[in-house]
Amino acid sequence: MTSTPLRSVAIQMAQDDDVAVALRGLDAGLVIDLGKGRGTITVTANIPRGHKLALTRVPVGAPVSKYGQSIGRATSEIHPGDHVHSHNLGMDDSEHEHGKERLRARQEPGPPVGPIPTFAGYRRANGTVGTRNYIGVLTSVNCSATAALMIAEAFKYQALTEYPNVDGVMALTHQSGCGLITGSEGAETLLRTLRGYARHPNFGGLVVLGLGCEMVAVESLVDDGTIPADTIVSSLTIQAAGGVRAAVAEGIARVKEMLPALDARRREDTPVSELVLGLNCGGSDGFSGVSANPALGVASDRLVSCGGTSILAETPEIFGAEHLLTYRAADPDVARRLLSRLQWWQRYAAQGGGSLDNNPSPGNKDGGLTTILEKSLGAVAKGGQAELSAVYEYADPVTSRGLVFMDTPGYDPVSVTGIIAGGATVICFTTGRGSVFGSKPAPSIKIATNTELFQRMGDDIDVNAGSIVDGSASLDDVGNEIFELIIRVASGQRTASEDLGIGDQEFVPWTFGTVT
Amino acid sequence: MTSTPLRSVAIQMAQDDDVAVALRGLDAGLVIDLGKGRGTITVTANIPRGHKLALTRVPVGAPVSKYGQSIGRATSEIHPGDHVHSHNLGMDDSEHEHGKERLRARQEPGPPVGPIPTFAGYRRANGTVGTRNYIGVLTSVNCSATAALMIAEAFKYQALTEYPNVDGVMALTHQSGCGLITGSEGAETLLRTLRGYARHPNFGGLVVLGLGCEMVAVESLVDDGTIPADTIVSSLTIQAAGGVRAAVAEGIARVKEMLPALDARRREDTPVSELVLGLNCGGSDGFSGVSANPALGVASDRLVSCGGTSILAETPEIFGAEHLLTYRAADPDVARRLLSRLQWWQRYAAQGGGSLDNNPSPGNKDGGLTTILEKSLGAVAKGGQAELSAVYEYADPVTSRGLVFMDTPGYDPVSVTGIIAGGATVICFTTGRGSVFGSKPAPSIKIATNTELFQRMGDDIDVNAGSIVDGSASLDDVGNEIFELIIRVASGQRTASEDLGIGDQEFVPWTFGTVT
Ligand SMILES: [Ca+2]
Ligand SMILES: [Ca+2]
Ligand SMILES: [Ca+2]
Ligand SMILES: [Ca+2]
Ligand SMILES: [Ca+2]
Repeated sequence: MTSTPLRSVAIQMAQDDDVAVALRGLDAGLVIDLGKGRGTITVTANIPRGHKLALTRVPVGAPVSKYGQSIGRATSEIHPGDHVHSHNLGMDDSEHEHGKERLRARQEPGPPVGPIPTFAGYRRANGTVGTRNYIGVLTSVNCSATAALMIAEAFKYQALTEYPNVDGVMALTHQSGCGLITGSEGAETLLRTLRGYARHPNFGGLVVLGLGCEMVAVESLVDDGTIPADTIVSSLTIQAAGGVRAAVAEGIARVKEMLPALDARRREDTPVSELVLGLNCGGSDGFSGVSANPALGVASDRLVSCGGTSILAETPEIFGAEHLLTYRAADPDVARRLLSRLQWWQRYAAQGGGSLDNNPSPGNKDGGLTTILEKSLGAVAKGGQAELSAVYEYADPVTSRGLVFMDTPGYDPVSVTGIIAGGATVICFTTGRGSVFGSKPAPSIKIATNTELFQRMGDDIDVNAGSIVDGSASLDDVGNEIFELIIRVASGQRTASEDLGIGDQEFVPWTFGTVT
Repeated sequence: MTSTPLRSVAIQMAQDDDVAVALRGLDAGLVIDLGKGRGTITVTANIPRGHKLALTRVPVGAPVSKYGQSIGRATSEIHPGDHVHSHNLGMDDSEHEHGKERLRARQEPGPPVGPIPTFAGYRRANGTVGTRNYIGVLTSVNCSATAALMIAEAFKYQALTEYPNVDGVMALTHQSGCGLITGSEGAETLLRTLRGYARHPNFGGLVVLGLGCEMVAVESLVDDGTIPADTIVSSLTIQAAGGVRAAVAEGIARVKEMLPALDARRREDTPVSELVLGLNCGGSDGFSGVSANPALGVASDRLVSCGGTSILAETPEIFGAEHLLTYRAADPDVARRLLSRLQWWQRYAAQGGGSLDNNPSPGNKDGGLTTILEKSLGAVAKGGQAELSAVYEYADPVTSRGLVFMDTPGYDPVSVTGIIAGGATVICFTTGRGSVFGSKPAPSIKIATNTELFQRMGDDIDVNAGSIVDGSASLDDVGNEIFELIIRVASGQRTASEDLGIGDQEFVPWTFGTVT
C-alpha cells in the first residue's frame, strides 16, 4: 500500500507534538508516512482542512501538545490517525491557572550562527537608530489637522526630488487633543503617544503645530528631554501665526529650512541588535497560527538571538491564556506586570458593556481550533520562543532588549501606533483575510497566511507564508525570508504599503478618555 | 458735568436687566447716561472690561437679572453704578433646583415680519433639502481610510471643472469601525453617525467603502431605508476588489459614473423653514456671551419664527444650569429627556476619572463671569429665546421643527459631527480665541466675538460680532447680518473655511466605546 509523506498533507508545528494540522481535507483510510523512521499511521476519520490529526497515542487526562506546548487534555483516549477536536480534547478551569507544570521545555533561540548581520540605519544623537528619514508635522489637537496636511501636501509628488535622502513629510493628525480630562488615564495615554512619535528615530525633523487654545500645549510634546538632540524641532500655533493660510505658509517655510541638513544625513552599517521590530496581525484566518505567525516567530527569534528587540502586543488576543507568556517571563515582576494589565482590561471591557472573550468562536471551531490555549498559542507564535524580558504600557518607550510585550488593543491601527510610539522601527504584520495596513514613519511588512490571498492582493502583500501551507517551504524557510526582508526594509527598501502611499491615516492613538 | 451714553461703554443684554457688561474699563466717578429718559448713574468703583455694572438697585436676597433671566441673588444691597461680582452676587444650592420661579417671562420670537424668506436648495426625494451637492466616500472602518482619500484625491483641483454643480468628492474617514463591542453604546453611536451622514441631503452620491472583514459591514450603513431615493449609492470592499490599487480604480470609476447625473441637479427656491441650522462655539473668550452668542441667538430666533430648525448642543456647557433649558421645554417629556442625558453625563465623566464642572474658572472670574448660571446663559444664548421643542441623542435624526437640543460633547469636531449626522445643513460657529473649524458636507459660518480676532485671522472668519463690543452695531444688526448670510451660504455662497478647503479632517464621530 502506498503512503503519503506527512509534510505534503499536514504540518507539525514543533518536534514531539502530538498533533499536526491538516493542510487539506484528509480522508479516512489515508496512510501517512511520518518520516524519520517513525513509520506510518492510518487516518481513522475524515479530517477537514485546518483541523488536527493525531500523530501519537495520548491517554485520557494526558496533555495534548501543539507548538511544543499543551493545548489541553485528552478527554478520551486518542490514537494515531484520529481527528483531534472538541470530542476528545478539552480544558478544565484549572488548566490555565496551573498550566505551567504541564508545559514542555521551551526551545529558546540560541546564539546566532556566524557574525551578527548589519543593516544600513540612521544613527541618532541619543543612540537610537532610524530606518527612515522623515519630517513629521505633529499636531497637538484635531483643530490643526487640516493645516498640518496642507503643509505635508506641499511636499508631495516632485517637491522632494532635490532631497533624495528625505523620505517624506508626514502629517501626524488625529481626532483628539482637547475636551479631555486633564491628568486622566485617557489624556496621559494620548500624551505618551504623541511624545513617543516626537522622539522616534525615523523623524529627523519635526514641526509641532497647534491651534493655540487646546488642552495639550505644543511645547509639552517636545520638552521632556527625550527627543534626539539632532532632531530639528520647530513649533508654531495657528492663532499666533494669524490663521490657517499664514500658519501653512510658515510651516512650509520651516520644513524647507530643514531639508538641506536632513538630506545630508547618511545611513551607516549597524548591527541588527539596534533594530526594534513590532509584531502584529489583522484579519486572521485559520492558517494564521500555522503559517504566517510561526514563520514570523522564527524571524523574531533570530533578531532576539542577535541582541535585537521584538515587541509582541494585542492583549485581548492572549486573554485567558496569559500563562503562556508569564511562563516565559524573565523574572516574577515581568509576569506580575502582565497580569496587572490583564486585570485592567477586564475593568475596561466591563465599562464598555462587554467582556473579554478570547475563546474560539464557532467560526474558529469550524476552522479547527479547539481550545483558548490553542488559539492564543497561534497569536503568540508571532513572538517565537524567546524569553519575555519586559512588559510595557501602551506607547511607553521600549528600552529593554529581547522579546517584550506592549499592552495594546488588537485593533490594528491603534495597536501599531502604540508600538511605533514605543520605538519600533520596522513592523511585521500578518494577515489571512487581506489587511491593507501600512504605517509611517516605521514601515510595515505584510505577510499573507495563504497563497490565494497573496495572489489576489499581491500589490498589498510583501511575503507569502502560504508556501508553508502549500508544502513548498518550511517555517524556517519563510522565517529566514522574513528576517532578511526586515534587514533590507530597515536599510531603505520600500514595502508594498510604502509603494502604495499608505500610512498617514493609520496613525491612530488609543483614545479611551471621556470627551467633554 | 458731561455724561457718557451707556451704549458707548457697556452693553445691556436684555431690556429691564439689572446689569450691563462693561465694554472697556470704567473708572469710578464716570457719569453714564442710561438713555430713554432713565437718567444718569455714577460709577462707584473701577470696573474692568467684561465685568458687570449695576443699572438698578437690587435689595439683599433679590435676583439679579442679565439676559432677561436671574444669574443669582444680591448678597449685599446693590446700588446703580456698583461693580457687580462675587462680592455682592451669589447663588445658593437651591438656586438651580428652583430657579424657574425666579425667572422672568421669556421673550419668544414672534411670527416673522413680511413673507418667509427663501433660499436656493437641493430638494431631495425624501423631502429634505440640501445646501450642497457632494459625493461622499463613506468608510466603514479606518482600514479603508487611505483608499477613500485616494479616490477623493482623484477629483481635486481641476478634475470637476466639467461638473460645476458638483461641490466635490469628500472622503469620510475616521479612526474606528472595528474592535468595538457589538451592540455596545459606543458601537451604536458610531453606526448612528455613519448612517446620519449616509442620508444627509448634501450628499447626492455615495460610495461606501470597506475593507471586508470589519465589524461594521458596508451594507449596514445604507440599508435602513432612510437614504433619499435619489441618492446614488454604490458599495465595495477592498478585499473583494483585490487590494488597494484595484479598489481605488473601481471607486474612481463609480464616482465618474455618478457625475453627469449629479451635475444635472439644480437648486430651487425653498422657504427657510426647510433649513436645519447647527449652533456651536469653540475657543470662547469673555465676550462670547456678550457679542457672538447672543447675536447668533437673534438669527436662530428668526429662523425658528419662520418655521425652521435650529440645533443647540454641547451638553457639558449647560451642566449645572439645565433648568435654563428645561424651563423652555415644550412639554415635560422634553425636559425629562434633557435631565436624563445630564445624568448619563455624570456617569460618563466619572468613568473617565473626572467630573463635570461648568463653574466659572478663575480665568472666567477674572473676565467678569460670577455664577454658573451666568456662564451657561452666555453659552445658551446661541439658541436665542425660543421654546425647546425636542431633545435628541448624539447623531439622532432631527425631525422636529423649532429650537431643539442635541446631546454632544463640547469638543468642536465631535459636537458638529453629531449635529451634521442629525441633518444640519448649515453650521454657525462662534469663536473668541480663533478657531479655524470648518465642516463638510454642511458648511460652517464662523463668527468672531471681538474685532481684534477678526482683524488678526480674517481669512478664517465670516462675521465680526466684535462690532457689538466696539459699539458700532447692535445685537439685532449682527443677528440680522448672520441670518442673511445663512441664507446666502445655504444657497451656495462659500464660507471662509470652504475657501480654505477645511472640513475633511473635521469629521470626528464621538467614540467612547471600549476598543479591543
Ligand atoms: Ca489579530
Ligand atoms: Ca491587530
Ligand atoms: Ca508601510
Ligand atoms: Ca464651547
Ligand atoms: Ca464646541
